[in-house]
Formats: sequence, structure tokens, C-alpha cells
Amino acid sequence: MPSEAVLEFWFEFASTYSYVAAMRIEGLCRDAGVELVWKPFLLGPIFALQGWDTSHFNLNPRRGAYMWRDMERLTDKFGLPWRRPSEFPRNTIVPARVACAVAGEPWCGDFVRRVYVANFGLDAAIDRRDVVAQILTELGHDAAAILARAESPEWKPVLRANTERATELGIFGAPNCVVGTELFWGEESLEDAIAWALSRAAGG
Amino acid sequence: MPSEAVLEFWFEFASTYSYVAAMRIEGLCRDAGVELVWKPFLLGPIFALQGWDTSHFNLNPRRGAYMWRDMERLTDKFGLPWRRPSEFPRNTIVPARVACAVAGEPWCGDFVRRVYVANFGLDAAIDRRDVVAQILTELGHDAAAILARAESPEWKPVLRANTERATELGIFGAPNCVVGTELFWGEESLEDAIAWALSRAAGG
Repeated sequence: MPSEAVLEFWFEFASTYSYVAAMRIEGLCRDAGVELVWKPFLLGPIFALQGWDTSHFNLNPRRGAYMWRDMERLTDKFGLPWRRPSEFPRNTIVPARVACAVAGEPWCGDFVRRVYVANFGLDAAIDRRDVVAQILTELGHDAAAILARAESPEWKPVLRANTERATELGIFGAPNCVVGTELFWGEESLEDAIAWALSRAAGG
Repeated sequence: MPSEAVLEFWFEFASTYSYVAAMRIEGLCRDAGVELVWKPFLLGPIFALQGWDTSHFNLNPRRGAYMWRDMERLTDKFGLPWRRPSEFPRNTIVPARVACAVAGEPWCGDFVRRVYVANFGLDAAIDRRDVVAQILTELGHDAAAILARAESPEWKPVLRANTERATELGIFGAPNCVVGTELFWGEESLEDAIAWALSRAAGG
């Protein structure tokens, strides 16, 4: 008997390619009948494992120059707002902790997309608590209560646990889709990951 | 008046993702009505610019482990032969010089694909002149004459010139499609590059 198709989306709010993927993944999963699980994590500790103290897009100017041009093309292709952020990468611990605490809420996707558009469409300082609070308020939620929940003893450790799990899964960048233990890296692999989830659920 | 759509395919015979792209690009261009120009180059000098003395897949074990698994999936997806090479990356100066010398021949694509299948489907030592000669012979050509042409004063410098041009274009890896000066990196960007070539030719 087929089981339910499930896909984990592992993302970092500072990651440019995660932005493009995060804006698309929920609709793609819904259309395909695949359950989506939001998995926020931090790239900093993963980059440190690879000997980097910042994004490789900063460390490698040739690679970085390509990424910024590619983002112009990709956001144009998918009709997404784009403004190159004045700070890159931003510290994302505040919104990432909130995303961990609301990952099971039906409006988590709305929050995730708002944060990404703030960072990459509006050049807003998503590292700041007041900026994240405003997003929550605009979505109709009690921002103070949710920020308190995100930093509570119950929820605060989830971001670190997610990041440790990301390390175990072999993650080295973002975004990623994970189906079981099968890892798909990059915004261009969303469709392959969804196909894998469907095939696996069908017993393939 | 629309001009002809032209796409340059910049590839390195040692590159795994170039293998997957090289097997597909000629058919995709033919179907789309885009003229394909083969552009062999060497990644070694490009990697050296980034401070690397070998493939980053060897330097970064997390990134490398993902690539080898990804190649299993991609070759399965596209129905391509696959055997993980016992030496990686191989020295590709011999087949790359031949590809430069025959880039204008209608059978260049056949040669390119044979070399890639030898490296990544058969684990053959494509760094060796006799292995390259055998591929040329099997394609019905005078291997000795073509190898002599490839190393003649007229053709031998083309590979270095291509690699210098790749550097100017901002290339940092492989494969790449170049349309005008617009760079598309990665085997998953072939379709975007073809769309760009068509749009540009139409005056878009």
C-alpha cells in the first residue's frame, strides 16, 4: 500500500538560491500532492566544517559575481522581487528560530516567504527582532508571543538540532530537499526531489 | 531582422557534470534551431585562479560525496552509462587538443560524446594518446593525422587561447553555455541558455 509522499525543505534565510526555491516549493508540493516539511537551519556551522568563515560567494569572487547575475535572471524568470542586499550574508538566527517554532503551523510558508522577500526584495534587516516582529504582525499574529515562544527553552534548541541534523545528512549548502535520507541540493533540483518523493511513496 | 541563434558550449573532459550536459546539448540545440559551437577548455588554470590545485570535489569531501551520488541519479535519469572513474580528475590535454582541432567538423559532437563515455561510462584512460586514437579510428578517421593536426603549430595554441577566453568570460567551473557574453553555468541551465539564445536572436 502506498505511503504518503513527504519532502523536507532545508533552507537558510541568508541564502540567495534558497529564496528562489522557498518562493516555489509550497506550490510545487501542493500541485504534486507531496507533504512539505519546513526545516530551517543555519549555514554558518556547515560552512565552518568546510573551513569557511563566510559565504563561499564572498570568499570566491568569480563564483560570487556569477551568483549575483544569476539571481537577476532567476528572479526575472520566476517573477520575484529582487534587490541585491546591502549586507550579505545577514545573520538569520532571529527569523530562523521563529520558523522553527512555527514550522508546524499552516501559515509557516507565508512567514518564510515574507522573510525572504524582506531580505532579497526589500533589503530589510531581517537580523533585527523588530523587523521580524513587523512581519508577524502584518500576517495577523501576536508577534511578542511568538518571539517569546521561539526563544523559550522548548523551542530555542530546535534550530541547533536542525543544523546538527543537516550536518549528518551531508548538507553543504542551501537550499536542499530531503526525501528519507536522499539529498537534493540547489534550487534547480526541486522537481527531481518531488519526483523522488512520489516514486518512493509509490514503493518505487 | 532576426539574427541566427548561437550558443557556445564550454566544457572540460574531466568534468562530471560536463559529461551529462555534453551528451544532451547537441540534440537540445538541434531541436531548438540553435547553432552549437564546441568550446573545449581546461579547468586546471581556472581552478588555480581560485587557489585550488585539484577539483573542488576532491578538496571538499562533503561537496564531493554529493556530486558522486548526484551523478548516479543524473545518469540514471538521462539513460547514460556510468562507472565512477578510478582516477579523478584525469588529465585531458590530449582529447581537449583534438576537440579544438575538430571543433568545426560535423562529427565533433560524436567525438566529444565518445570521449565522455570512455571517461565516465567505461573508466578508460582518456589522458592516453592511444585511447584517444582508438576513439578516432572507431569513428572512421585517420587518428595519426588528426593527432598530428591537434599538436601542430596552427592548432596546439587554441586550447590555451580558449582557456584564457574562459577566464575572461568569468568561467569558474564546467559545463557552461555562453550566449554573447552571457554565462550559464551547470548542466541544469542548458534549457535557460537555449531560451536566452533564441530570445537574443529574435531581438529580445
